[in-house]
Amino acid sequence: MKSQSTDSTFPTVGIIGVGLIGGSLGLALKKAGMTKKVLGVGRTESNLQVAKQLGQIDEIVDLQTLAEESDLMIVCVPVAKTKEVLQAIHPYLTKDKIIIDVGSTKMDVVACAKEVLGDQVAQFIPCHPIAGGAQHGAVAAKVDLFKNKQIMICPLLENTSVNVQRIEQCWQSLGAQVYKMSAIEHDHIFAAVSHLPHVLSYALMLQIANAEDAQKKFVHAGAGFRDFTRIAGSSPEMWTDISLANKDAILKELDAYLLILERMKTAMQNNDGAALQKMYQIASNSRNDWQG
Amino acid sequence: MKSQSTDSTFPTVGIIGVGLIGGSLGLALKKAGMTKKVLGVGRTESNLQVAKQLGQIDEIVDLQTLAEESDLMIVCVPVAKTKEVLQAIHPYLTKDKIIIDVGSTKMDVVACAKEVLGDQVAQFIPCHPIAGGAQHGAVAAKVDLFKNKQIMICPLLENTSVNVQRIEQCWQSLGAQVYKMSAIEHDHIFAAVSHLPHVLSYALMLQIANAEDAQKKFVHAGAGFRDFTRIAGSSPEMWTDISLANKDAILKELDAYLLILERMKTAMQNNDGAALQKMYQIASNSRNDWQG
Repeated sequence: MKSQSTDSTFPTVGIIGVGLIGGSLGLALKKAGMTKKVLGVGRTESNLQVAKQLGQIDEIVDLQTLAEESDLMIVCVPVAKTKEVLQAIHPYLTKDKIIIDVGSTKMDVVACAKEVLGDQVAQFIPCHPIAGGAQHGAVAAKVDLFKNKQIMICPLLENTSVNVQRIEQCWQSLGAQVYKMSAIEHDHIFAAVSHLPHVLSYALMLQIANAEDAQKKFVHAGAGFRDFTRIAGSSPEMWTDISLANKDAILKELDAYLLILERMKTAMQNNDGAALQKMYQIASNSRNDWQG
Repeated sequence: MKSQSTDSTFPTVGIIGVGLIGGSLGLALKKAGMTKKVLGVGRTESNLQVAKQLGQIDEIVDLQTLAEESDLMIVCVPVAKTKEVLQAIHPYLTKDKIIIDVGSTKMDVVACAKEVLGDQVAQFIPCHPIAGGAQHGAVAAKVDLFKNKQIMICPLLENTSVNVQRIEQCWQSLGAQVYKMSAIEHDHIFAAVSHLPHVLSYALMLQIANAEDAQKKFVHAGAGFRDFTRIAGSSPEMWTDISLANKDAILKELDAYLLILERMKTAMQNNDGAALQKMYQIASNSRNDWQG
């Protein structure tokens, strides 16, 4: 029996992993009147205390209590931890509850949700808010983090349209723009526009950090370097997980990127300014035309 | 006979190429009381008219007039054009005049200055203000562009210390911080922290622009992508010049970068999260420790 409620509120919300995203969700869902009570589970007691003091969660509980009491559970852990969280929740997953996640990759999350939840995967709705940042932890959370941000929902065939609509309305109530797409399309797009740039930014930062004259280079690095490497300040744990979770799509994008670098390298070696400028011109025009 | 003046002002300044840097120099030098009159030469009449209307230059002249009348000449053209500018100036280069440039590469500029100016290269002081931006043209110029910005001066053995000091004071009067280093060290450092990142950013933008689903990718690209690709909006002409002018250093950095990408690729292929996270961690720590 599937829930037919069109009520968009969830009396009790359980947040598993109260960091930047989880903490902001706690604040925002309460402010939007989408919930009355937020329960929090996390790995670090001090971080949970901060989250409670800042009003992001009302109670610090264990995972069983959270699973038993929450109408909506939001999994905000690094993607590699999703499986163990779902395994711990599963025994308490009555038919009226919904689980969503906020992971940056979706194919792997869907696969593990199907494996762990079986038929009850119908109650799991994969989500991905594009609202990360180099900062993390409850201390970085903000009530308006999702305002005017994009939220990707990757509905499963098993999900009821009513539940998908409830989750869609829930995100919209936080001021977010919702897009729906398949998990495979999601992972392909974000490999290109998010995951690969992170890998490239980490790689440049590693190169400078390992240079003999690193200190001098850091002194003279300017605004372009600062912007290019901002995402290299992101959580290494989270991005290791993402890199492995979506490695097929990332490696495909990386190989295409390496071919472009080879073309640029050849143009430089041959002093072929015309070829190089043609490539730079397409890139520059696209960047300046983009309204991102 | 070399100039022994320690006067740091230049009654007439000639700016060759009145774009972001040249136009900002016109405004800033006048405001700082370093000059009374600024002459401008450029390729585009409409841009020169804008520069004159905005007070960046007082008169639009031809290159001969500029060379005859200016006490300080500032070459603000794409680095590949430096040679022809110096050739045009050379016949009018009396001993009391100083030339500086603002190019992003220095080894090539020094080589062509030596070739064109001969002994008079003593009057040429290579400079590089770290104050570029994705915007260009006189319309983008700002009076405070150099405030708190770094200026690299790469003095030649032929330069007099008095002249180097005059130029140093001139930049300092605009609020800039002056650093002195050799041209070879300059080009090595900036290949790593500026030129390579531009190449990498252009390459990613080109990859997305050429993708079949480019429009969809651009819709979902977020803040990380925006920062990473900001420098891909830079002038293709200028960056083609820089890429070729400093290609030895850039290709060396690019090869080192490709090795790092191969290591990351191998770690992903082998599901070696520990190796990947170790690399990301070093990068992330360095980025977060950097005060840039």
